[in-house]
Amino acid sequence: MPSGLLLDLYQLTMAQTYLAEGMDGMATFSLFARNLPPNRGYLVAAGLEDALTYLENFRFTGEDLDFLDSTNLFTAPLLERFDQLKFTGRVRALAEGTVCFADEPLLEVTAPILEAQLVETMLINEIQLQTLIATKAARCVDAGAGRRLVDFALRRAHGGEAGMKVARASFIGGFEATSNVRASQTYGIPAAGTMAHSFIEAFPDELSAFRAYARAYPDRAVLLVDTYDSIEGARNAGIVGRELAANGHQLAGIRLDSGDFADLSRKVRMLLDEAGLSATTVFASGGLDEYEIADLVAGGAPIDGFGVGTRMGVSADAPHLDLAYKLVSYDGTPTMKLSEGKATWPGAKQVWRHRTNGDAVRSIEDWIGLADESAPEGAVPLLAEVMKNGERTSPVEPLAALQSRRKEEIAALPEACRRMRAPVPPVLRPTPALWELRREIAAKLRPVVEAHR
Amino acid sequence: MPSGLLLDLYQLTMAQTYLAEGMDGMATFSLFARNLPPNRGYLVAAGLEDALTYLENFRFTGEDLDFLDSTNLFTAPLLERFDQLKFTGRVRALAEGTVCFADEPLLEVTAPILEAQLVETMLINEIQLQTLIATKAARCVDAGAGRRLVDFALRRAHGGEAGMKVARASFIGGFEATSNVRASQTYGIPAAGTMAHSFIEAFPDELSAFRAYARAYPDRAVLLVDTYDSIEGARNAGIVGRELAANGHQLAGIRLDSGDFADLSRKVRMLLDEAGLSATTVFASGGLDEYEIADLVAGGAPIDGFGVGTRMGVSADAPHLDLAYKLVSYDGTPTMKLSEGKATWPGAKQVWRHRTNGDAVRSIEDWIGLADESAPEGAVPLLAEVMKNGERTSPVEPLAALQSRRKEEIAALPEACRRMRAPVPPVLRPTPALWELRREIAAKLRPVVEAHR
Repeated sequence: MPSGLLLDLYQLTMAQTYLAEGMDGMATFSLFARNLPPNRGYLVAAGLEDALTYLENFRFTGEDLDFLDSTNLFTAPLLERFDQLKFTGRVRALAEGTVCFADEPLLEVTAPILEAQLVETMLINEIQLQTLIATKAARCVDAGAGRRLVDFALRRAHGGEAGMKVARASFIGGFEATSNVRASQTYGIPAAGTMAHSFIEAFPDELSAFRAYARAYPDRAVLLVDTYDSIEGARNAGIVGRELAANGHQLAGIRLDSGDFADLSRKVRMLLDEAGLSATTVFASGGLDEYEIADLVAGGAPIDGFGVGTRMGVSADAPHLDLAYKLVSYDGTPTMKLSEGKATWPGAKQVWRHRTNGDAVRSIEDWIGLADESAPEGAVPLLAEVMKNGERTSPVEPLAALQSRRKEEIAALPEACRRMRAPVPPVLRPTPALWELRREIAAKLRPVVEAHR
Repeated sequence: MPSGLLLDLYQLTMAQTYLAEGMDGMATFSLFARNLPPNRGYLVAAGLEDALTYLENFRFTGEDLDFLDSTNLFTAPLLERFDQLKFTGRVRALAEGTVCFADEPLLEVTAPILEAQLVETMLINEIQLQTLIATKAARCVDAGAGRRLVDFALRRAHGGEAGMKVARASFIGGFEATSNVRASQTYGIPAAGTMAHSFIEAFPDELSAFRAYARAYPDRAVLLVDTYDSIEGARNAGIVGRELAANGHQLAGIRLDSGDFADLSRKVRMLLDEAGLSATTVFASGGLDEYEIADLVAGGAPIDGFGVGTRMGVSADAPHLDLAYKLVSYDGTPTMKLSEGKATWPGAKQVWRHRTNGDAVRSIEDWIGLADESAPEGAVPLLAEVMKNGERTSPVEPLAALQSRRKEEIAALPEACRRMRAPVPPVLRPTPALWELRREIAAKLRPVVEAHR
């Protein structure tokens, strides 16, 4: 779908004004989180792949131009410029799966100002959603401490497209599978699922329903036990499990979907073990998130895997990220804004990271500085060129590689960053050159401001 | 886009089992909210139009069938059934813009169980998002007490598709315009917008930026004043406003985007009035929601309109709705589930509403009963047939009609329902026939359950 008009009106009226004023200089915009959401000690960068696809496909169709013409807001020269317009800029970005923090650019765009401004809204949109979800998913995985996590979010994601992006981002975050079949088809993520309460109810009784499902899937049945009563359901599952075993099959698992999981999981585990079904797993779903998973794991609940839907899929405790896309340089001159509580760092930037991974101590030190500075000693740069002249300069990375990167990145974080509640992110260190540039520009703008503060 | 595989794996494995067992009876599923989110005294039903479009377009493509075949989970007879499968069922639903409450079906589907089960996930998805957003938007509009509200959510909606649905649903909720140009093109919603900080920063100074924009849009410029300092920005806007007036034009407005809006709005209003610009409006944006708007309105802040983005677009304080899609009847037999805290009402249903709109007292009484019951005296039924044999039986309603319905519905609500915090929804009254049916079915299931409770 050509995405030209999927933007905010002001991007078009600003474009009109830039054109009228003959302003066609190169602009650099920096996309970063102004702050971390509550209870987040890090972000997992994600969404770059879709953001680059958006930039590659950015076009106005003839129908779009006709619509714009009908608004009487735009001149013929602007519509001529829009016809055949492509994004021709350069993009530097963090690789997906990289851990990052507030004020660190996830992405910087350098392009003629008209182009760079037109792509603002959808770049924020693409990076926000998957970064939010990869972060939330990574926290669930961290809380799960090795247990299997499955994405169940499609039904309560914000639209079908969001459901697809949630499946992708949660896989980067460390989920092993998704219930979303189109996501499995599109991204190669393993598909997983069990059965619904309606399935049970459509049969005369629960045991008949379990038996029917086991006939269809003798080696991969996960039976939902809470339609009428979880304990009785587990007993019925035990009966079917023994019947399967007698025919050389194995009941894969049971699913709890309501009630007190800590208590129920112990009881159903015992019932399954007594039925000789020690290889049959216990899976839990229903209103779960990282906080609940951490509590269940800490309490030793015998649960082998979790289906996590709603709260992960909308990042329920932090459903938005305060992402900004700010002009940091225009026509060779660094710029910044001074708005109360929203001041920005000027100039195209780089972020460098230095890690210490001792046996007992893991530390991370990040610097932010100007793009053309040399790296602080022992630190590696995080932003790399991924697009030039509107074309990708790096191959598409397999999703599994992004998942592995996230895993390594999080394993190397200090414990304080990873806490579920009140985590402490590392302090970001601006380089002396960046401080100095900010001081210079602020000083030029300051006389005006000081009069009112 | 054919949407066949945009579903959960279990829908397919259940379909496989239904087919293998020869179960092809008619099923009725009821879609309802199990409870209202915190601080919600009502829901505004929305999303039906897109849900019906989904049902009309539901198909598996050849590529989908090849993918399913490759999983080795499905038999040839099932894939044959899926080839050419269409949704052939009946749908009864609340009209969009109707106010509703917990446990009241927003929609009921009656179809062969295989079909009705396959569409579960996306029906929940479509109805959830727009109902959430129309409700959140309606609360913002209620808080705004007549002030103009504009949707600024595209950049922080969960994907571009979500941004489109947010624009549509917020218009139903009473917003007057959207910044989303494609939504304006698609839905005929008025487009609105101002300018970005980057625009100001790209000029040598703020006054030059304002003048350039005013040259391009002399009669509809809304100048963003907080890039460096809101008060100084308003002074510069005043200069440009006088220049425009001298040439027979009028500065449309200024926009505040940071700082203390209660204080700043008074100061900038005074500056504009002193400059003879009493017709120039003050518009505020940045982190707003219904709570903040209500406070500003209660405090008498001279703000004429609000741009509401992030917190409306993700329904930040309640980003998900506990929507269930439950089997209530199969092959002529009513069904229910008894899961802890999630028990359901059996049978195909109707909701009837009786309103009293006295001068001093507004009351609302809702009954829920079986679909074939007659209406309680003086009450009107809310669920109406909108699709039969897979085809729409009612014309598409214009968006403006849905907006008007929402307005009338909310105006008729008791004050207790409309409170911003701790509202009190009306009590839902089950009919005697529904109580009796529930008792009967529960009694049949109870002996099993009582053993463990």
